[in-house]
Amino acid sequence: MTETDLTFPRGFRAAALAAGIKPSGRTDLSCVASDAECAWAFAGTRSTTAAACVTRNREVYARGGPVRALVVNAGNANAATGAQGARDNAAIADALGSVLNVDAGAVLTASTGIIGHLLPMDRVLGGVEHLPDGLSREAAPFAAAIMTTDTRPKTAEATLSTGARIVGTAKGSGMIHPDMATMFAFAFSDAGVDQAALRAAFPGIVARTFNAVTVDGDTSTNDMAMVLANGRAGEVDLAEFLAALEGVMRDLARQIAADGEGATKLLTVRVTGARSEAEALAAARTCCVSPLLKSAVHGNDPNWGRVIMAVGRSGAAVNVEGMRVTVQGTPVFAGKPLPYDAARVSDSMNAPEVVFEVDLGAGDAAGEAWGCDLSAEYVSINADYTT
Amino acid sequence: MTETDLTFPRGFRAAALAAGIKPSGRTDLSCVASDAECAWAFAGTRSTTAAACVTRNREVYARGGPVRALVVNAGNANAATGAQGARDNAAIADALGSVLNVDAGAVLTASTGIIGHLLPMDRVLGGVEHLPDGLSREAAPFAAAIMTTDTRPKTAEATLSTGARIVGTAKGSGMIHPDMATMFAFAFSDAGVDQAALRAAFPGIVARTFNAVTVDGDTSTNDMAMVLANGRAGEVDLAEFLAALEGVMRDLARQIAADGEGATKLLTVRVTGARSEAEALAAARTCCVSPLLKSAVHGNDPNWGRVIMAVGRSGAAVNVEGMRVTVQGTPVFAGKPLPYDAARVSDSMNAPEVVFEVDLGAGDAAGEAWGCDLSAEYVSINADYTT
Repeated sequence: MTETDLTFPRGFRAAALAAGIKPSGRTDLSCVASDAECAWAFAGTRSTTAAACVTRNREVYARGGPVRALVVNAGNANAATGAQGARDNAAIADALGSVLNVDAGAVLTASTGIIGHLLPMDRVLGGVEHLPDGLSREAAPFAAAIMTTDTRPKTAEATLSTGARIVGTAKGSGMIHPDMATMFAFAFSDAGVDQAALRAAFPGIVARTFNAVTVDGDTSTNDMAMVLANGRAGEVDLAEFLAALEGVMRDLARQIAADGEGATKLLTVRVTGARSEAEALAAARTCCVSPLLKSAVHGNDPNWGRVIMAVGRSGAAVNVEGMRVTVQGTPVFAGKPLPYDAARVSDSMNAPEVVFEVDLGAGDAAGEAWGCDLSAEYVSINADYTT
Repeated sequence: MTETDLTFPRGFRAAALAAGIKPSGRTDLSCVASDAECAWAFAGTRSTTAAACVTRNREVYARGGPVRALVVNAGNANAATGAQGARDNAAIADALGSVLNVDAGAVLTASTGIIGHLLPMDRVLGGVEHLPDGLSREAAPFAAAIMTTDTRPKTAEATLSTGARIVGTAKGSGMIHPDMATMFAFAFSDAGVDQAALRAAFPGIVARTFNAVTVDGDTSTNDMAMVLANGRAGEVDLAEFLAALEGVMRDLARQIAADGEGATKLLTVRVTGARSEAEALAAARTCCVSPLLKSAVHGNDPNWGRVIMAVGRSGAAVNVEGMRVTVQGTPVFAGKPLPYDAARVSDSMNAPEVVFEVDLGAGDAAGEAWGCDLSAEYVSINADYTT
């Protein structure tokens, strides 16, 4: 959902303002604060050139304590900025902690935007001073302020049987091939959940949601996904909570894929018959990242041979004789090419979502991944970003 | 070189004709035959959905004997064609063996083109009948007949100190991210070399040449590289031969990258300071496959942050403090962002080849990879291939 009246769960408030990091003058600095300590889980990029915010959040995570706030800037990733970048990142957490009167070690940070430029710290710290003035339950200003090349904000919510809620927000449009999380996904809940149990379940949820999204195969230096639960709505059933959280994250993941840079449609690949969930997800995601399949989807071309190609390079075990492929529900391959009405299938691909189903014929595991078509617009968006 | 007067080494003859596999009416069926038995080495795609020709060549390879001929068709990959595809592939080898009067087990096969369609066997077998009529030493007709979306034929040659020669041909323009070899590279030599020594050295040569090329990250079902040496020019020094072979293959690899689908320029990434050659090659190739870096190269945008991103996701170990990056020779990063004249560097990128040099600061190994820019033309080439 992207409704403007979405509110954060009990105890969470957010603020956003234009600090002048983005040349466009759009909002680019925001925070979310909880009036109670939050149990939390986190997943950050596997990139070996991870940004300062990812590195620092990992340190806070390793200490194991609860957190109280998150501060986000868009327009500058503060990545590849060396020791100065690390100091700037810590200074932002210190400043927000100070104005909110919470310990700096309970403040998480997130930066997104161009790589390789130092933050304009005067503007950032000046903005942080004014963040407390705008704190409210409204989610829309925060969801907008974390965007870069996104064309629309991305939010999702779930309400548990006890009345506890989960509200998720995400941003991401290019450099999307998360390898732990996408850049960014934040979920907030007033449910009471055990932090250890949450942390144990989180990697699996991320694997089936954000790590199943790809726009261009490029993994960001700043990817992160996190969930903060402050317990203000009381204890909940853990299994119900985790299922609802996965639903929120899956919704956000699909929104990210559909809003991929230059995208005109969502690409969904469902794989069954795999030896393992990991192989099913690998096969599905390799299809979604293939520039050749993405181009075919853009042109409504039912060129299913590119699915066979992508599955083949994914490393997933296949039994070609037992393989099955459908395009928008039409069977096109079952151990051998099947006759089908190409014009009719092409017409059916002229839709907001194109679905390929692939049975690998090698086992019982399944997985699903999401991407988008590749358009000429992707190239024009990315051929002239800095200059 | 692409000169039309290039001849094959002693003892090799080739023929090409239009069998009617390509709707365009261009030549699409060809063969190369040697009048003496050839020592040979081979590398085929690691795809788990490899085509019939790759599977059969692997079987011939495993038997370990010498070979006499190669038959190639373009316009149809004969991949994902099931048991009938395998029978068709064997029938083509049988037919060429019969008309050349050599054992079918000494005939290699190669198919390239669309995946998932049975070959028009009447036309193919009818064409094979007429191949012997056209046999000659000329290389140009063969180099042209193996093309699909290539815009130009790709050949390279070397002459050893003894007068023995190596002539290489290749094709490939899209679905290029070889994982053993590219689709296709054939080298022929009249040198006398030991087959066991040749086979031992071949994987390393392929790793540093064809496996360092990428156009779009998509690995073909039909990739293969091979070298055939018939000894007609006598014994040669093995080290000299292997160095010359690597030079020929490197030349062909760069030609493939420069002729990538929609490409307007060659992208070269040289990595030093890696822990191992494998990590250097992985880092270099991940840069070359990045749609974001490829788009920036297309737009003459010196957005070196995308190099940091791509290296970070490659898995290669880095020491960020010791990292160095140059764009067309201009230093832009040395543990931190460096000031540089963006307009001048952008001007320098308006060239047939754009070179990034990256020192990972983590070791002493080096590697180089080649790709091309990403243009809107890539999308239009691939959005409407079958329909």
